[in-house]
Amino acid sequence: MAHLNSHYLKLKAGYLFPEINRRVKAFTDANPEAAARLIRCGIGDVTEPLPLAVREAMHKAVDELGTSEHFRGYGPEQGYEFLRKAIAENDYRSRGLDVADDEIFVSDGSKCDCANILDVLGHENRIAVMDPVYPVYVDTNVMAGHTGAASDAGFYEGLVYLPCTAENGFMPDVPTEKVDLVYLCSPNNPTGAVATRERLEKWVAYALANDAILLYDAAYEAYITEPGVPRSIYEIPGARQCAIEFRSFSKNGGFTGVRCAFTVLPKELLCTSADGEKRPLHPLWNRRFSTKFNGVSYVTQRAAEALYSSEGKAEVAALVSHYMGNAKILREAVSGAGLTVFGGVNAPYIWVRGPQGATSWDIFDRVLNEANIVITPGSGFGNAGEGYFRISAFNSRVKAEEAARRFAAMKW
Amino acid sequence: MAHLNSHYLKLKAGYLFPEINRRVKAFTDANPEAAARLIRCGIGDVTEPLPLAVREAMHKAVDELGTSEHFRGYGPEQGYEFLRKAIAENDYRSRGLDVADDEIFVSDGSKCDCANILDVLGHENRIAVMDPVYPVYVDTNVMAGHTGAASDAGFYEGLVYLPCTAENGFMPDVPTEKVDLVYLCSPNNPTGAVATRERLEKWVAYALANDAILLYDAAYEAYITEPGVPRSIYEIPGARQCAIEFRSFSKNGGFTGVRCAFTVLPKELLCTSADGEKRPLHPLWNRRFSTKFNGVSYVTQRAAEALYSSEGKAEVAALVSHYMGNAKILREAVSGAGLTVFGGVNAPYIWVRGPQGATSWDIFDRVLNEANIVITPGSGFGNAGEGYFRISAFNSRVKAEEAARRFAAMKW
Repeated sequence: MAHLNSHYLKLKAGYLFPEINRRVKAFTDANPEAAARLIRCGIGDVTEPLPLAVREAMHKAVDELGTSEHFRGYGPEQGYEFLRKAIAENDYRSRGLDVADDEIFVSDGSKCDCANILDVLGHENRIAVMDPVYPVYVDTNVMAGHTGAASDAGFYEGLVYLPCTAENGFMPDVPTEKVDLVYLCSPNNPTGAVATRERLEKWVAYALANDAILLYDAAYEAYITEPGVPRSIYEIPGARQCAIEFRSFSKNGGFTGVRCAFTVLPKELLCTSADGEKRPLHPLWNRRFSTKFNGVSYVTQRAAEALYSSEGKAEVAALVSHYMGNAKILREAVSGAGLTVFGGVNAPYIWVRGPQGATSWDIFDRVLNEANIVITPGSGFGNAGEGYFRISAFNSRVKAEEAARRFAAMKW
Repeated sequence: MAHLNSHYLKLKAGYLFPEINRRVKAFTDANPEAAARLIRCGIGDVTEPLPLAVREAMHKAVDELGTSEHFRGYGPEQGYEFLRKAIAENDYRSRGLDVADDEIFVSDGSKCDCANILDVLGHENRIAVMDPVYPVYVDTNVMAGHTGAASDAGFYEGLVYLPCTAENGFMPDVPTEKVDLVYLCSPNNPTGAVATRERLEKWVAYALANDAILLYDAAYEAYITEPGVPRSIYEIPGARQCAIEFRSFSKNGGFTGVRCAFTVLPKELLCTSADGEKRPLHPLWNRRFSTKFNGVSYVTQRAAEALYSSEGKAEVAALVSHYMGNAKILREAVSGAGLTVFGGVNAPYIWVRGPQGATSWDIFDRVLNEANIVITPGSGFGNAGEGYFRISAFNSRVKAEEAARRFAAMKW
C-alpha cells in the first residue's frame, strides 16, 4: 500500500500568490473596465528586458550547440568551471573574501537551493525563521516533516519564529534558546531591511558558540546602496565555519525566466553526523548535485557568465538603478500620504505600515478597489507582517510613476 | 548542534562514472599517445548537433526576452501551457491515450524527477528496483533514509532487488512479496531490454492488487523500433490508477546540455495518507513544483516545443536513426566477435556478456588497454550486471565504425 508524504497535508491551502491571483481575478471579472488600469506591484518579478550582453552570449551558445565541433551534452552537475570561477572571482575574491571555485554550486534557482539544502541536513535540527519572511523556508520544512501542525494563528509547532518588527529594524537579534539552523534573509524579502555588520557579527558568534548553521539568503544583494552594509555573510570573520550563502541572478540580471542561481558552501563548515563525529557538509552537497541534478543548461550558464563581463556589469547596474529609482518614487509617494514606510533603500521592496486597525488583506482589497493596484499583504509572509503591506518596485518607470500618483491620491 | 543527513554516509564512495573517469585518466596519463585514439562508448551522452528547429526557437525566445513587449519573468512552475499541451497532445492524446495538459509537469531533467518524486511519497514504502539498473533510483532512496547499510556485495538492506537476467529477458516478473513502489525502466538503461505488453499488464495488475505505484522511466521511448512494444505505460488499461511516467528530451532531442524533461502524474492515482485515507498524489506533486521549483527556462521550454513541430519531428527521427544505425554496427561487430549480445534494437545501448570468468571491471580495463575504447562495466549498475558491459551507441558514425572495427579485432 503506497503511502504519500502526509506532512504535505499540514500545509495551509491558501498559498499567498494564488490567493492574490484569485482576488485579482474576481475584481477584474466584476470590473472589466478596471482591468486595463491595473498596476501590479505584488509579486517580486522583474519587468525590464534581458541585458544585451546576456542575449548575445545565449545566441552564441545556441549556435555552438548546432555544430559537431562545439556541441556539449552533459556538463558538470555543479556548474561549468568558467561560471564557478567568474562567480568566485567577481563576487568574492575581488572583494577580499576567500571562496574557492569548487565552493560555488550553480543551480536553476535560489528557491530550489533554499529548499534542497534540507536534503543534506538531518531531521533532528531545531529550526528558526524570521517572521515575516519569504514563505519557502517554512513550507519546505513543513514538507520535510520538521514541524507539527499549524496553529489557528498560522504558527507551525516546532519552528522557532524570530519576530521582525519596527522596534528591531525588522532584523532579529540572536535568540536566547539554542537552535541549529537559522534562515536569515538580507536584504530582506518582504521588509527591505538589511542586516548590519554588528548584527551579523552577533549571529556568527551565536552560530559558532552553538554549532549552528546560518542559511544566508542574499538574493537581493545587488540592491544594497548604503556603504558599510555587508554584501556577503563571508565579510564576517568566522562565517566560513558556519554559513551557507544563497545568491541568484534573478533580480540583478533579470533572470526570473532564464533560471540561474548559486550557493556557496565553504569546505570548513562542519556538521554532526549520527555517530557524533563532526564532518564537512561540502561532500554531501556535492554528492546531492551529482545524484539528483544534472546541471544548469549550458546556454543559461553562458548567459550568467556574461553578467560578469564589463558590458554585463554596466547593464546590471543600469537595471538596479532603474528599479531603485522606482523604489524612491513609490517610497516618497506612500510616505507623503502619511503612512510609515520601511525598506526601499537597499532593496526593491517597500514595506508599509497600514492605517491603524486595518488587516493586511483589508488594505489589499482597498488598494485593489480604489487604486487598481495589486500589492502583497504583509500577513502573507507571517504573523508579524499583519497590518503591513509590501510594494514591489519591479516595474516600468511609467507604471511606477502612475502607481505613485494613485497611492498619493488615496484617502488613507 | 546542526546535524547532517547521515544516510548520505551509507552511499558507496565510488560512484560509477567518477571511477570510470579515474581509470581513463590513469590510462591516458600513462599512454599519452593513446589519448588521441580514445573512443568513448561509456556514458550515455548524445554527441550530434542540436536540431535546427530547436536552435531557431531558442534564438527567437532569446530575442523576445530582449523586448519590453515580450519579456517574460517567472512562468508557471509546472511549465507553460504551450508546452504541456504539445506534450499531452503529441505523446499521448494523438496515440489514443487519455492524458490532460495539467497532468504533465515540465522539469529540467528526468534524473531530478526520479529523485524528487520521493519527496511526495512516504518513508514507510517498501521499494523494489531492477538489478542492474540506472543507479539514481537506489542512491536517492539511500539518501532519503529508505535503506539500511550496504552489504559487502553492494545490496542495500531494505530494498527489494529484482534480478534482470538473460533468462527473463532482462525484464523482471512481478515479485511474490508485496512492495509499494516499483521502479521500472523501459527501454532499459543499461540492458537495452524493453517490457512487452504482456509483462506490463502483469505489473499493472500487481500494482492495482497491492495498491502499489509503478515509477515508469521511459526516457528512451524514442528508440523503440519494434512494432507492438508499448511506448507508454498508459497503453495498459488501469495504469492511470497506479503509474507515474518519466520522459525526457535528452535522448530524442539531444537535450542533455539543454535540460528539459517531464513527468505524467494522472489525477486518478491515489495514495494512502497517515490517517488511512486514500488521496490523490497529483496535488502534492503540484505543490512540490510550486514550492521547491520555479519552472524551466522559457528559452528551453520553447526549445522543447519545437521538437513537436513537423521540422522538429523530422530532425528527431533523423537523430534516432543515426544513433540506432550506430547501434546496429556495434551490435553486429561484437556479436560477430563471438560474444553474446542483448539490446541495441529498441535502445541505444548494447548489453554484452563478457568472456567466461571475467569481471566487468576486468573487461573494462582490457577494452581500454587493447582497443582504447571506454565502455561501462555492467556491475556498476548492480550486482546482476557482473560479467556484462554496456556499449553506448551515442557517437558520430565515424567513431562508431572505428569502435566496431576495434571490437571485432580484439582477441576475446
